[in-house]
Amino acid sequence: MKLILIIADGIGDVPIREFNYLTPLEHGTFPHLDRLAREGICAMMHPLRRGLPAGSDTAHIAILGQDPLKTYRGRGYLEALGVGIEPTSGAIGFRVNFGTVEDGIVTDRRAGRSPRHLDELSREVRETVDIGVPFSFRAATGTRAALVLEDEGLSPEVSDGDPHHTGVYPLAIEPLDGSDAARRTASLLNSFVSQAHEVLRDHRLNAKRIEAGDLPANFLLVRGAGVRPAVPTFQEQFGASAACIAATALIRGVARCFGFDLIDVPEITGEYDTNAQAKAEATIDALKSYDFVFTHFKPTDTASHDGDPVKKEAMIEKLDAMIATIISSIPDPHDTVIALTGDHSSPCVVKDHSGEGVPFVMWGGRVRTDDVARFDERSCAKGGLGHIFAEDIVYLMMNQANKVKKFGA
Amino acid sequence: MKLILIIADGIGDVPIREFNYLTPLEHGTFPHLDRLAREGICAMMHPLRRGLPAGSDTAHIAILGQDPLKTYRGRGYLEALGVGIEPTSGAIGFRVNFGTVEDGIVTDRRAGRSPRHLDELSREVRETVDIGVPFSFRAATGTRAALVLEDEGLSPEVSDGDPHHTGVYPLAIEPLDGSDAARRTASLLNSFVSQAHEVLRDHRLNAKRIEAGDLPANFLLVRGAGVRPAVPTFQEQFGASAACIAATALIRGVARCFGFDLIDVPEITGEYDTNAQAKAEATIDALKSYDFVFTHFKPTDTASHDGDPVKKEAMIEKLDAMIATIISSIPDPHDTVIALTGDHSSPCVVKDHSGEGVPFVMWGGRVRTDDVARFDERSCAKGGLGHIFAEDIVYLMMNQANKVKKFGA
Repeated sequence: MKLILIIADGIGDVPIREFNYLTPLEHGTFPHLDRLAREGICAMMHPLRRGLPAGSDTAHIAILGQDPLKTYRGRGYLEALGVGIEPTSGAIGFRVNFGTVEDGIVTDRRAGRSPRHLDELSREVRETVDIGVPFSFRAATGTRAALVLEDEGLSPEVSDGDPHHTGVYPLAIEPLDGSDAARRTASLLNSFVSQAHEVLRDHRLNAKRIEAGDLPANFLLVRGAGVRPAVPTFQEQFGASAACIAATALIRGVARCFGFDLIDVPEITGEYDTNAQAKAEATIDALKSYDFVFTHFKPTDTASHDGDPVKKEAMIEKLDAMIATIISSIPDPHDTVIALTGDHSSPCVVKDHSGEGVPFVMWGGRVRTDDVARFDERSCAKGGLGHIFAEDIVYLMMNQANKVKKFGA
Repeated sequence: MKLILIIADGIGDVPIREFNYLTPLEHGTFPHLDRLAREGICAMMHPLRRGLPAGSDTAHIAILGQDPLKTYRGRGYLEALGVGIEPTSGAIGFRVNFGTVEDGIVTDRRAGRSPRHLDELSREVRETVDIGVPFSFRAATGTRAALVLEDEGLSPEVSDGDPHHTGVYPLAIEPLDGSDAARRTASLLNSFVSQAHEVLRDHRLNAKRIEAGDLPANFLLVRGAGVRPAVPTFQEQFGASAACIAATALIRGVARCFGFDLIDVPEITGEYDTNAQAKAEATIDALKSYDFVFTHFKPTDTASHDGDPVKKEAMIEKLDAMIATIISSIPDPHDTVIALTGDHSSPCVVKDHSGEGVPFVMWGGRVRTDDVARFDERSCAKGGLGHIFAEDIVYLMMNQANKVKKFGA
């Protein structure tokens, strides 16, 4: 029995005025999503609790079988893992933006969103800054980066340096509790940020950015301190080998925490231009070597954050075509299970995550089918599985493969 | 208000190819089950959590209102209680099989499944073996038995002596933690097993078994150490008098833990040949003396473990006839509630417990009815109670009798 979990980030939505009060899933035509619904068993899936908007990190921790309320310890460590840093299990991770500061004031939190020369500038920071403890620093997608401090006696209980808006000074990083570890960590971070600013502000590569019409990437905005969540690996939980296909650093990081092998696919970007067909082929290919393949599709969420329902519908069409390719490559649905849902809803009118449930379908295996014929919010609310939570998903899938250990005798 | 809870063990199933992808409940004709569904309120019931296969012990603990994740302490004690041993509350119970050993190797874990002379052989073991602490040992159904050690300073943290397959030596019982209690318990058990082997191996009754064409029952395979789960009685929980009608030792043991009176009915066997009409009559009779009667029906699960959907359908017919008798004896359904479900699903294709939900119906009393007209997996998933958990069942029933104490004022 082979298991495929497809997470379409932020796919759930709400009635949209310009769609005659239909959601993007209800408004568009998605024959392969609907085939899954018609031939499978549906549900409404709630990531954490009813009405509570989930982060992508917490939602994915729940989806992979653990309670984020007990295990989540911040985003930074996960993001660092996701960009390929190999922190020790006691390290502290941080999210970083390359930002633009003029006369001490933050004028752009993302340096005009241009990633030009950021790899080289990251290397310069890495090679020049010395804060007396080992650290890793690496550029990620866009103008993002990740930082990891490696030492005993550090703490994630520190504030953000990122002021989260422009027109103000960057914030001094402060300890959030009275511990020596938090004080020391804040001090190390402030030192890191000021040394990095020295490296970046007059760097010739920033001169080249300006020449090319970009803003200078001359300040590192640090936020989102996190440590490793104490979760068992997927193999430990379910005795199944597992691979992940995802472009987004955070998702890759969560998957690595759970011991997933990451499969790198050229042309998958996590952006509107991602090559979803390449992702479909990689999914099918991975099934030859793994029991469980988790494939993440990001641009549905991007369109939601952009508040663009037409684009979201187009991205769901791309997802539909990706699923068509996956279905057509499955010889016998009784030997394969596909589960499809999102990590959370992201209504275009909200431009952010929301607390509404997400349509869910499980197809193949020995599922008890239901009457749902369309994969959308209002149809799946009538599904044969009723309302489920994210922590149920992998149990439901693994049960199809008889891989959940009986509790009791 | 009188309450009847009928548990059809392992009744839930999945679409079966030779039944044109219907389940046994969907494939067969069960007019009285369907009457309950048509006139009652239905649900899909999950024993522990979605997708997690439950044991019969843990499922029944949940059904009787307690959380097995917090209270379950192994099967052995429950099994011992169920065969009529009266252990003190600190005793350790074990499941035992009479097995066959030749030249030191386990050749049959159940001595050919023949119970011939096992009562007498059990008595011989009881009267001859001396391990220096009080113990109880009693033959149960088939070739099963139960053992209880009674002393201070014992521990259930010991491994099984049963190797769980044939062609190998029986296992030495080992302590599972570093405690003195576990070491001492393992040592007492190994002494018990070897002394019992001395008693059994050349016993004249085993010679008679061999003469009769049976395998000798010459070795005791010990497993499933357990202590008493800390659960309140049914009376303490709900202020209701309660009786149980069941043939299966484990279920009788769980019921006794909850303070149920056991009603013995000749001809109920827990096997295919059980007299379900006698069970129906005993249920009706018990209602005269008790507020709550829990009647357990085992052979649906046996057919599932045998992987035989035709037999399972026949056993559900037997259940249907049993329910017909019960319904016909009820003068006024407004004064009586019948709830019917299983303890877990046991799909014939799996031949074991699975994590799928179980159809549930509650009939009589003042229930709000729904549109469900058939008692089966896909119909009950649309029930008016939605999806419930095992721990909800008795609350739902007791609420019909106004016997659940208000929480708050």
